[in-house]
This record gives sequence, C-alpha cells and structure tokens, in this order.
Amino acid sequence: MEQALRSELTELIGLIYERGWAPGTGGNFSRVLSVDPLRLLITPSGVDKGSVKPEDLLVVDEMAQVVQGAQKPSAETWLHIPIVEECGAKVIVHTHSIWNTLASLTPGSLFTINGLEMLKGLTGVATHEHTESVPILENSQDVPALAETLRKVLRSMPDAHAVLLRGHGLYTWGCDIFEAKRHLEILEFLFEVTIRSRTLEP
Amino acid sequence: MEQALRSELTELIGLIYERGWAPGTGGNFSRVLSVDPLRLLITPSGVDKGSVKPEDLLVVDEMAQVVQGAQKPSAETWLHIPIVEECGAKVIVHTHSIWNTLASLTPGSLFTINGLEMLKGLTGVATHEHTESVPILENSQDVPALAETLRKVLRSMPDAHAVLLRGHGLYTWGCDIFEAKRHLEILEFLFEVTIRSRTLEP
Amino acid sequence: MEQALRSELTELIGLIYERGWAPGTGGNFSRVLSVDPLRLLITPSGVDKGSVKPEDLLVVDEMAQVVQGAQKPSAETWLHIPIVEECGAKVIVHTHSIWNTLASLTPGSLFTINGLEMLKGLTGVATHEHTESVPILENSQDVPALAETLRKVLRSMPDAHAVLLRGHGLYTWGCDIFEAKRHLEILEFLFEVTIRSRTLEP
Amino acid sequence: MEQALRSELTELIGLIYERGWAPGTGGNFSRVLSVDPLRLLITPSGVDKGSVKPEDLLVVDEMAQVVQGAQKPSAETWLHIPIVEECGAKVIVHTHSIWNTLASLTPGSLFTINGLEMLKGLTGVATHEHTESVPILENSQDVPALAETLRKVLRSMPDAHAVLLRGHGLYTWGCDIFEAKRHLEILEFLFEVTIRSRTLEP
Repeated sequence: MEQALRSELTELIGLIYERGWAPGTGGNFSRVLSVDPLRLLITPSGVDKGSVKPEDLLVVDEMAQVVQGAQKPSAETWLHIPIVEECGAKVIVHTHSIWNTLASLTPGSLFTINGLEMLKGLTGVATHEHTESVPILENSQDVPALAETLRKVLRSMPDAHAVLLRGHGLYTWGCDIFEAKRHLEILEFLFEVTIRSRTLEP
Repeated sequence: MEQALRSELTELIGLIYERGWAPGTGGNFSRVLSVDPLRLLITPSGVDKGSVKPEDLLVVDEMAQVVQGAQKPSAETWLHIPIVEECGAKVIVHTHSIWNTLASLTPGSLFTINGLEMLKGLTGVATHEHTESVPILENSQDVPALAETLRKVLRSMPDAHAVLLRGHGLYTWGCDIFEAKRHLEILEFLFEVTIRSRTLEP
Repeated sequence: MEQALRSELTELIGLIYERGWAPGTGGNFSRVLSVDPLRLLITPSGVDKGSVKPEDLLVVDEMAQVVQGAQKPSAETWLHIPIVEECGAKVIVHTHSIWNTLASLTPGSLFTINGLEMLKGLTGVATHEHTESVPILENSQDVPALAETLRKVLRSMPDAHAVLLRGHGLYTWGCDIFEAKRHLEILEFLFEVTIRSRTLEP
Repeated sequence: MEQALRSELTELIGLIYERGWAPGTGGNFSRVLSVDPLRLLITPSGVDKGSVKPEDLLVVDEMAQVVQGAQKPSAETWLHIPIVEECGAKVIVHTHSIWNTLASLTPGSLFTINGLEMLKGLTGVATHEHTESVPILENSQDVPALAETLRKVLRSMPDAHAVLLRGHGLYTWGCDIFEAKRHLEILEFLFEVTIRSRTLEP
C-alpha cells in the first residue's frame, strides 16, 4: 500500500517536472499515510524533480520532523500540515509555473476567476457562473509563521481549492492523486486563460 | 471494425491530452458506429484524458442513453448528437485549449478568420481569401437546451466547420478520424495566429 | 543512397511535426536527387506530417510532374523548383509555424532581423551586425505564377536564406539536410525573438 | 571518471536541446577535467546539439587550444576560461533561449530580478527579498577581447551567477552538473516571469 502511494506520487512529480512546473529543484509534494498520528510522505529538500524515485520520499510527522528517511525535508513541509488538517487533503502539490507565479504577482489578496467552464473541474463547482477566489498570501522566509497565516486563511475560506504565495507559487490538493492532479491542471489552465484574456481586452 | 475505431479514437485522445488541449479531465470525444439507429462511441464523464483505453469508451444512442459500458456518459453527450445529425459528422472532438478558450471569449457571436493559407485545411475551402466564421454560443449548464440552440445554429450555418462555446471550448468534427484531427490542428493554429496578430497590430 | 535520403528527410519531417511547425497536413518538404535532369523527392499532397514514411515520398521532375509514386504532389511543388534552380538548394522545407506566420503578416515586403548572434547560424553570415532581410511575397492560389514571382525575387536577392509568403508560411533550404534543419531552427528563433522584442519596447 | 563526465554533460546537452534552448547548432557546453593545468571538455563548433555523443567532446587547454579530439572548438571557448578561473566553475552552459535573448535585449547593463522565491535556487541566495543583477555585456565578434571584458565583470561582481551577452544569450555555471542545470532552469524561469510580469503591469 505505502509502496503504491510512493509510486503514484513519484510518477505525478515526474509528469509535473516534464511540463516545466517544478524547475530547478523547486516545488514539493506530499501524500498522507495516516491522519492520527499524522504521517506524511514528502519530497526531500533540494532534489531535482525530474529524477525523484519512490524510495527518496521521506516520512514526516505533524511537527515536520523526519520519522523515516535519510534526507532533509523541505522547510516548506510546515505548509503542508495545515492543508491536511484544515482541508482534509490527502495529496498536496506545490508548484512553480510561469502562470501561477504571474497570478501570484497580481495586485490584491485574491486572484479571481469566473465565467469559465473549466471551473467545474474544481470539486464541488457545478457551473461556469461560479467565482473562484484563490487567496494570495504574502511570501515570507519565516515558514512556521507563514503556516499559521495559511491555517487562518484556510479556516476563513473553507471552500478554497488552492492558495497562491506572492512571487512564489501555488499550493493545491485533493482527496487522492487523481483529484490533486486534476486541480493542478485545471488551475494552471484557468490562470493562463484569465491572465492572457486580460491583456487582450480593449 | 469497432475495435479499430475504439483504438484510433483512443490514440487521438492521448495525442490531444499530450498537447494540453484536454487538461483536468476536460474534453470529450466521439465516433459514430451507426447512423440508423444512432450508436455513438463516446468518452465517459470525468476521466483523465491522458489514460483513456479503448475499452473505456461507452456506446450511447440518439437520446444520449448508454447502450453499452459501465461508466456515466458526459452531460455534453447531448451536444454531439446534433453535430452528427445536422453535419453528417463521424468523429467529433471537444477540446479546451488556451487559444480556443481565448477565441471563445472575444466579443460578438462569431470568431472570424481570414487571409490565412491554413484555412485551406478546412474541408471545402480552396483559397486563403475565404472568411471562416466560427459561431460562438453562450455557455449554459442546461445542456439539452444548449443542444437545441446548437442544432439551430448548425442548420443556419451549413458550411460551419466548428462551434465555440463562450468560456468553454471548441467543438469540431470530420468524416473520419483523419479529418477531425486535421480540423482540430488547423483551428488551433488559426485561433492562435489570429489572436496573436491582433495584439501585434499598431 | 536514395533510400538514405528518403529516411533522413522523413525523420526531419517527423521532428518538424512534433514541434507544431506543420500542423493539419500543412507544409511540404523536398530533397534533390539529381539536378540534370531535375529529380526531386517530395511529400505528397494532404498527408499528415506526423506519419510520413520514406516510401510515401514522390519523385517529380522540373515541370512538377510525378516520375515515381502513386500519390498526388502538392500544388506547391512548383515553388520548390525555382529554389533549386536559383539557389542551388538540395533540401527545401516549407513550414507553417505560429511565429513564421506572424512574421509573414507584418507590413511591408521584407521582414528584417538584426543585432542577434543567432544570425550567424545562417550560412555566410559572420557577425551579429548583419541585417537579414527575408522577402515577404503576397500569397496567391495561382501557384505557377507565384513560382515565377518567387524566381524573380530569388534572382534579385541572391543572398536570401528564406522567403515568407503572406499569411502562409516559410520556405527555407540548405545544401543538405543538416543545413536546412539549422536554417529552419535559426529562423524560427529569430522570428519569435524579433516579434516578441517589438511588443516589449516602451 | 572522464567517461562519466562526458556522459553526464552529453545528457544535459540533449535535454537542453529538447527544450529549445540551443537551436540551430547554437550554444556550447563545458566541463573542467583538471584546474592545473586547465583541461576543459567542450562541445565542438557547429554541431547539432540534439545529437552530441560523449566521444564528440574535445579537450582544450587554458589557451583554448585542442589537446584531444579531431574537431574544431567553438570560438566561444575563450569565454569559458575566465568563468573557470574567476568563479571556480566546473560546468559551464551557454544557451540561446527565447527568454534569455529577450532579457539580454532589455536596456542597460544589468538585468535585475527580485521578489521571487525561485531566486533561492541560485546558490547562496537565502531569501526572495534578494536582488539578483545579471550583467549584460555588449556582444562582439572579437571573442578574446570579449573574454577580457567578461573577466573584469566577473571580478567586479564576485556574487554573479550568470552573464548575458546582448542579443546573444546566457552563460551560467555550477560546481557540478547538478548545480549548472539548476541555475539554468532557475534563470530561464526568472527571465520569463520577470519579462512577462512587466508587460502585465497597468
């Protein structure tokens, strides 16, 4: 079972790298193994996402401490924990694409998307008339503090499907690998269409 | 015979997914098996278009009811039927690319393309001096009603090669898999060139 | 020998298709077998450039008549002949990319490129201070007449490495498959950089 | 050992070509074999970067003279030497991408990047609040003179991770193949995001 979860996460990471959404060792990716006690499979810090193998993944606990594995976890492991705890996420993907970074740089604290059919690819959205508001948090190198801010934002926006960090990238998630992948592809599409369509307006 | 049609449709879906034209389980694809009674091979609802297998395709009838197969058909099955009935299409592709979505968001009820040699890739077009008008329908979650609107538009524009749904995507088709693929590639090219060239104008 | 030439041309066509530079059966490609009498290997009309096989290529003569092969040659075969005769080209590629089409749509009868190191990838160019002028011919469905115009332009611009047809695409060539591929890659790069840099100017 | 270094460099070159960052035989790539005396593995002049094999790489000395190998070295071999000598680089990559060329064309003698988390992918950078200044040198065909200018710039900017040549491309490097690849991916990302975000500003 754990072996299968390691394999499917590793396969998704490879796909994401191929698309250019996790260049230069950027990005990190996790999978809940158990909720109580919290055990999270997660990518180690500073590895090329084009060559992660199932056995490279670490297991960490709810304090972001390594329970199993020899490498160092990413500092951003802290940001995965509130997403598990507040959203019930099972798979979390953090990516750095051109378009999610551009979305994160738009002014204000929300990136708003509406009128697009592909919004229905976000779980629970039934119509293109939905408005999806993706919160944009200011970036910080104090990751535990950022994790607390993230927790508050997730509590105040229980319907959120994703969070952007300013100039940093995207966090999205799902109840399984399939939903996390779908949310990621949908959001990348929505960011690019929304930003490009703004520059086309007369 | 049916097995070959399943395989060639599945192969085209995989190619379309690789190009990013059907992200996040978006898009649906069909192939006429017989016209009278109408039997249509079609992708099930909510599946990742990167991993459709020949045996995953459903068979539906002219009322969009499943005749064969265990999965749920897409609601948008309704939109395939008038395309078969009004245009004589044998293969129908519905895609969500960045550029067809941007085309669908331009103001007005027609997206107009002219002056480009590649227009000749649309069956029946013999010169770049042709003007292709792709109708843009307002999107709706009432798919049977949308299917009726689509039928009227197709009757009023018998030379149409494609239809855009606002903020939603593209429907195009062909008399076989080869023509449907060609129309899709041609239209994606024409949308991107036309939109980009507008932003370059002084 | 002919078999090797068929294979290397077919391989290049496959690569060009993969990059999206010959969508929708667009583009055509040729290889001189002999100069006197002129014998030209060339792609048949209307085939998907993603699946051309060595044995699919036709042999035509200096009047664009088929000498060997069962399929119809492209009408644009006429345009390959003056390029062989006036430029001594051995391999000719005609492609339809987004950026060469956009270049062909810029006003005037020349697309001018200068100041870029990659100009040195064009045979005979020794410095980035070179100005490359790519002639833009008005498109026409009268291909034999267009071929005569092309011949005059090539005579008046003996240093040309390529020709654009308005709203249609690019012709470039080389003394062998390697030079033709290099010229194509270089020109695609130069068109995209030049056009994008104009939109960035203040 | 040398065989492994040849293989890993060749593999990186292939990857870079696949991404379109070294079209048309552009780009060159090197790997230090020994520092004293300087022995540098380097790509020969004018070869297609999509088909370099480990045995194609030359060995040159500190005067850019070939010590081993039958082909001609690139004139730009001269530019690799000060990067080794001044920065202690072990792997040097010189690429021609759309976005690094556009970055090199921006006015002024520095391309400045700030506020982006991905800056932390550059060795020694610990915060997104860092400002990275990439020097832009005017291009010249007098490569030995350009090498001297480059040496002075590298001495005056000991924290530089990369250099741009105007209208020409990027040089970046690392202490091993992994760091050079990471710096390249990070810089390509930072150039594209920075340039695109400028055009989105109101």
